[in-house]
Amino acid sequence: MAVETREEAVTIKHHSEDYSVVGTRPVRHDGVDKVTGAARYGADVSQPGQIYGAVTRSPHAHARIRSIDTSKAEALPGVHAVITSADLADPGEKVTGGGEATAVPLKYKSGNVLARGKALYHGHAVAAVAAVDAHTAGEAAALIEVDYEVLPPVMDVLEAMQPGATLLHDDLHTDIAGEASEEPSNVAAKFLFEEGDVEAGFAEAAVVVEREFTFATVHQGYIENHNALALWHGDGELTVWCSSQGHFTIRAEVADILDVPVSKVKVIPTEIGGGFGGKTTCYLEPLAAALGRKAGRPVKMTMARADILKATGPTPGGYVRVKMGADSDGKITAAEAYMAFEAGGYPGSVVAAGCMCVFAPYKLSNVKIEGDDVVVNRPKTHAYRAPGATQAEFASETVVDEICEQLGMDVLEFRTLNSAEEGTWRAGGPAYGRIGHKECVEAARDSEHWQSTLEKPAGTYRGRGVASGFWFNIGFTSSAIARLNPDGTVTLLEGSPDIGGTRSSIAMQFAETLGIGFDDVIPMVVDTDSVGYTDVTGGSRVTFATGYAAHEAANDMRRQMIEGMADVWDVAADSITYENATFTANGESATFKEAAHLLNEDTQQIIGKATVTPEKEGNAFAVHIADVEVDVETGKVTVLRYTAVQDAGVAIYPPYVEGQMQGGAVQGIGWAFNEEYFYDENGLLRNATLLDYRMPTTLDVPMIETIIVEVPHPGSPFGVRGVGEVPIVPPPAALAIAIYDAVGIRYRDLPMSPHRVYAELAARQNGAEA
Amino acid sequence: MAVETREEAVTIKHHSEDYSVVGTRPVRHDGVDKVTGAARYGADVSQPGQIYGAVTRSPHAHARIRSIDTSKAEALPGVHAVITSADLADPGEKVTGGGEATAVPLKYKSGNVLARGKALYHGHAVAAVAAVDAHTAGEAAALIEVDYEVLPPVMDVLEAMQPGATLLHDDLHTDIAGEASEEPSNVAAKFLFEEGDVEAGFAEAAVVVEREFTFATVHQGYIENHNALALWHGDGELTVWCSSQGHFTIRAEVADILDVPVSKVKVIPTEIGGGFGGKTTCYLEPLAAALGRKAGRPVKMTMARADILKATGPTPGGYVRVKMGADSDGKITAAEAYMAFEAGGYPGSVVAAGCMCVFAPYKLSNVKIEGDDVVVNRPKTHAYRAPGATQAEFASETVVDEICEQLGMDVLEFRTLNSAEEGTWRAGGPAYGRIGHKECVEAARDSEHWQSTLEKPAGTYRGRGVASGFWFNIGFTSSAIARLNPDGTVTLLEGSPDIGGTRSSIAMQFAETLGIGFDDVIPMVVDTDSVGYTDVTGGSRVTFATGYAAHEAANDMRRQMIEGMADVWDVAADSITYENATFTANGESATFKEAAHLLNEDTQQIIGKATVTPEKEGNAFAVHIADVEVDVETGKVTVLRYTAVQDAGVAIYPPYVEGQMQGGAVQGIGWAFNEEYFYDENGLLRNATLLDYRMPTTLDVPMIETIIVEVPHPGSPFGVRGVGEVPIVPPPAALAIAIYDAVGIRYRDLPMSPHRVYAELAARQNGAEA
Repeated sequence: MAVETREEAVTIKHHSEDYSVVGTRPVRHDGVDKVTGAARYGADVSQPGQIYGAVTRSPHAHARIRSIDTSKAEALPGVHAVITSADLADPGEKVTGGGEATAVPLKYKSGNVLARGKALYHGHAVAAVAAVDAHTAGEAAALIEVDYEVLPPVMDVLEAMQPGATLLHDDLHTDIAGEASEEPSNVAAKFLFEEGDVEAGFAEAAVVVEREFTFATVHQGYIENHNALALWHGDGELTVWCSSQGHFTIRAEVADILDVPVSKVKVIPTEIGGGFGGKTTCYLEPLAAALGRKAGRPVKMTMARADILKATGPTPGGYVRVKMGADSDGKITAAEAYMAFEAGGYPGSVVAAGCMCVFAPYKLSNVKIEGDDVVVNRPKTHAYRAPGATQAEFASETVVDEICEQLGMDVLEFRTLNSAEEGTWRAGGPAYGRIGHKECVEAARDSEHWQSTLEKPAGTYRGRGVASGFWFNIGFTSSAIARLNPDGTVTLLEGSPDIGGTRSSIAMQFAETLGIGFDDVIPMVVDTDSVGYTDVTGGSRVTFATGYAAHEAANDMRRQMIEGMADVWDVAADSITYENATFTANGESATFKEAAHLLNEDTQQIIGKATVTPEKEGNAFAVHIADVEVDVETGKVTVLRYTAVQDAGVAIYPPYVEGQMQGGAVQGIGWAFNEEYFYDENGLLRNATLLDYRMPTTLDVPMIETIIVEVPHPGSPFGVRGVGEVPIVPPPAALAIAIYDAVGIRYRDLPMSPHRVYAELAARQNGAEA
Repeated sequence: MAVETREEAVTIKHHSEDYSVVGTRPVRHDGVDKVTGAARYGADVSQPGQIYGAVTRSPHAHARIRSIDTSKAEALPGVHAVITSADLADPGEKVTGGGEATAVPLKYKSGNVLARGKALYHGHAVAAVAAVDAHTAGEAAALIEVDYEVLPPVMDVLEAMQPGATLLHDDLHTDIAGEASEEPSNVAAKFLFEEGDVEAGFAEAAVVVEREFTFATVHQGYIENHNALALWHGDGELTVWCSSQGHFTIRAEVADILDVPVSKVKVIPTEIGGGFGGKTTCYLEPLAAALGRKAGRPVKMTMARADILKATGPTPGGYVRVKMGADSDGKITAAEAYMAFEAGGYPGSVVAAGCMCVFAPYKLSNVKIEGDDVVVNRPKTHAYRAPGATQAEFASETVVDEICEQLGMDVLEFRTLNSAEEGTWRAGGPAYGRIGHKECVEAARDSEHWQSTLEKPAGTYRGRGVASGFWFNIGFTSSAIARLNPDGTVTLLEGSPDIGGTRSSIAMQFAETLGIGFDDVIPMVVDTDSVGYTDVTGGSRVTFATGYAAHEAANDMRRQMIEGMADVWDVAADSITYENATFTANGESATFKEAAHLLNEDTQQIIGKATVTPEKEGNAFAVHIADVEVDVETGKVTVLRYTAVQDAGVAIYPPYVEGQMQGGAVQGIGWAFNEEYFYDENGLLRNATLLDYRMPTTLDVPMIETIIVEVPHPGSPFGVRGVGEVPIVPPPAALAIAIYDAVGIRYRDLPMSPHRVYAELAARQNGAEA
């Protein structure tokens, strides 16, 4: 296949408003640094006198820790400190995290950082050492002797819920939803979302389809390894450098895990080489800090890839059952879902999000969704791009396709008919504001891809599938500070780490608000002491919420500049107008840059600031179209063509939007076809390398075509919707449907890897032959 | 002599006001870091991939540079870049610097960084190299071949002004004072301050004394060597780490010398290991930046001590003539002074300050002061603690003592009678506000030291001297930003590097303003992007001016918190009062910390800020008393007892005030007795090591007793006067007077080193014997 250029593959539907900076394609602020290697990532940071940490990890999936003997490690020359969970603070019943986004009981967070009493998964950290160099540290880590009582592992969510299943925790009565389980179990929480009467709804249905689905544990696969550097100052202050999706969250967690006042901890963010939801929590940071406290030296740690796969947070595998009914007009009469997600060794999967997303593209009168958060002997699972939605909508969108098939109805017409719209109730609420699912369906229908005929030469097995996807786009809290420079540029301090190019997408909203140029805004991601509280970079919230903060900071700057110019000109502030980046009053006039110079001469310090907590979700919808070809002799599926349609609200910086759509789709393709954790019968991870954990490469995917739909979000000054997460949601469903179209087999277990695809093809062949 | 403890040696006269934080002695914020070695100085900073710079320096005092051949250096393996002045921007007639405090023609600044056309002093930088390590860089620097036309050097200010003297610059018509010299000369500027009629004044005098004085070039002798690390980002942005007294000044100078927009340069300050006026300008920073730009790598440079002595800015040696007359009541009738100061290789000595200070402690009706700024083949001179005042007042205070002797008048009574006071005109203006010279004289008179009798056992030569000193204490511009943390602490961002403990003295004024605790304020010295413009740390201005900014930032924070609490409580802002660190309104009440928590919960970001340019100088006066013993067989003078009396306005943090008084006095003692640059007949510096450049050690001085006088400065919210500089002014005069009291010889040339003291004693002895 010929490689298409990016430009050829891109289509944008512009919305009606006209901006001068928003929607343009300048060179991003951090671009040169990143392509030239000048950008500084976590592992690039060093401090004089630093020593190096290493972690001792559990070789068992489930084991009671009887005792830990650190004496040999401590005796090794070059070792400065050894720690176990006894060196961390007693977590009690405290809750930690950086805010609503990341709140979690401290005992789980601390226990995941260093096992307390039990090792709960293969690779679980049980001790850590710091030594003069990384090799000595590794050698010492191997000298730590842990006396384990090995226990049977529980790896599967359904088995874990069976009566008599081995329990991971004997005190697991806490129910995150507020309901207590009757007796100790592996179910940490139950979620229920219900509206209308599903029984009545199914009774009205002409067609009812109920199916079961499973999916594997998968990892975010970010390129940059976890890292941390901790430096204690003699007076009890701690500085931590690390790359994370939220340095305010890391600050809160480190402070709580070590029981240090949060005001004594400064976290300095570095560039981050990918996160996708997996870098919203701490792993090494508290260890480096605890080791550094004990050793009296700065401690640097980096995590090997095998440990990342074993012991950081992949996103849950699990089980989903979906039942949907529709009347003969194609109107959905009822929908029901049950899902059980792997929490991993500690409570807290993304199952609640899965419940809220599973039917989110549709307007439903009768719906019931239940979810169980189940602990198993796998690493504590975490978010991965639209967490929970991909698993849930893989199931529901496949069932939708089957209903359409049974009704003989066009799949896009079905979606238009049943589409959620403004005012539609969504599980977990609130009712939607203005959303763009219908517009995405329309754009998909009008697309060259959908209008084209998929050619199927004899002997080939080709098919087309389409699926919708939903993700919330939350608000949470964001801050920005804008400092006016004497030369008329503005230094814009942001609290959100820049994972996907948000420095520029935030700066553009600032520039647009004041009518100044893209290059006149110098965005910077700054430490926890230098900007107001900002929640984690997640939930597709940053361009929306931190962009909103930048907009408000710009408004604050304009107000201050007007007051300042009133002093300079000795006129009343309310006589000054600001239009076209020019202040005017009583015949006086100064451009933004001239005013900056005048205000500086007048020694006025102009600092705009804002902290915002936007209330309205910027709900994102996507519709993806996939063409595939199945090699029936090997089970390998090739993606022939792929188009991602998505409502971006307003695309602030279209290249990023396209990049997010393409990146999300590619990750979804990997999830659909290849990625999975292979555990053996003892619960040991057998593919903890990037050779064996198979992620797609550029050779595995075609150029992803993008169609940006713009239905402005009424809760954002510029109509922004988050764009980073929803593109991972439709691929598995769209691809499963395309495979069905190609070979007539419905695959309901992820990944649809060659051996699984082939197995079903072979079984059918054998059945036909038998 | 028994070593006294600090506490025993300290006396404070408290002023009447009562504060809860101001005036206390808590553990300073940066104390633990500094005593444990955790504080990060310039040379502690490194960047991945950095290479190392070295400088090729002129072996001649005065030479025309015919050409520079860098080919051998460039060919040396490991060399990445070589630069000469051709790699810097054409300076034209531009002026550079960080503001009024440091403005200087760019051609001088740039030429001093890398010689342009001529080498003007021994050690003048002519080229620089960057290489893989410091050794290779040094080797390459030695391979640079400069074709010099060696010229005769001009080392002495009086010789330099003679007709026919060799000229350093052929275009030196610029007169900093605004008057052009008639023909090219080595005089760069003339200053004249005149009031009344000196001829008439001298005619009224009963006693007239006119004397000539000389003084040697001396260095500030800071412990930390100069350093710089420059990192270019691919998009033309430059980050510089260095230790300086003013990172905004370094930013401006680097930007101008390299012709980069100031907004593209960020300077990150590190801790600074002493400056005393010598770190107010750049040396290595532009070289590291220019080398880094050429090499495409971060470049780190540190300067060896020999190069610091040869090629950074010592403070001028020179010549002063003072003539004073008094009537028979002891009233000064006229005063006249002429002074010529070494500018070094480029124009701009501190002679104007010397002119303004020479008679500053006195109320004069008839006065005429002239000063010449003279270029000579010595390193470009710079400020050193009360720059110019020590030289000038050494002369005037010695003459005052001689007048008192001739009148038979008590030296303190003479000072009380003639003391400057509120409304007194000072050369250069303005008229004084409320000042404390009289109070210092009174405190000196009342001191146990002055009241005690100096015992003079037979065979010993002991004497006592007293002298006054003055320094301006300027305002200039300072900024502060205060961020309220959720736990009720405040992060206070300051633009002033902390040389003498100003983090705490500024934070204390912030805390006092809001009624919160010392430890609730976390002061930080931040980079040029993170706080408003702040002038150099100099002029004893920081505790005064940046403290003022902190006070105003605290007021701004209180205002914002009141508005914020009005939202939280849903009351009118003007119904809220703030007293005793508690907000109160309509029965609601919240302490400062509770309010911080509530405002955080309400996602309000509170950031107080201020930029101030205080108009009223906080003039500082000091009176020092010295007892000495002269060893007539060697000429060595021992200080037996030393008391420094000083008006601190209000001593914000008394231990710092005492430390500054003690440190200044010790430096003045070194200047008086030992320190000097020894140049040979070719103008080559012969004592460029700290073994041969003799500074006092703890063994050379007694415990310096301190008496803090508090006459609050009306131009400061807390009455602060700068304290860092004036204590260096009185020592040479007080010690010369004490030596006269001991042996009957008036020494008028600094330093009064053993060989000079002995030479006069021997000459007298020989005269007596002849």
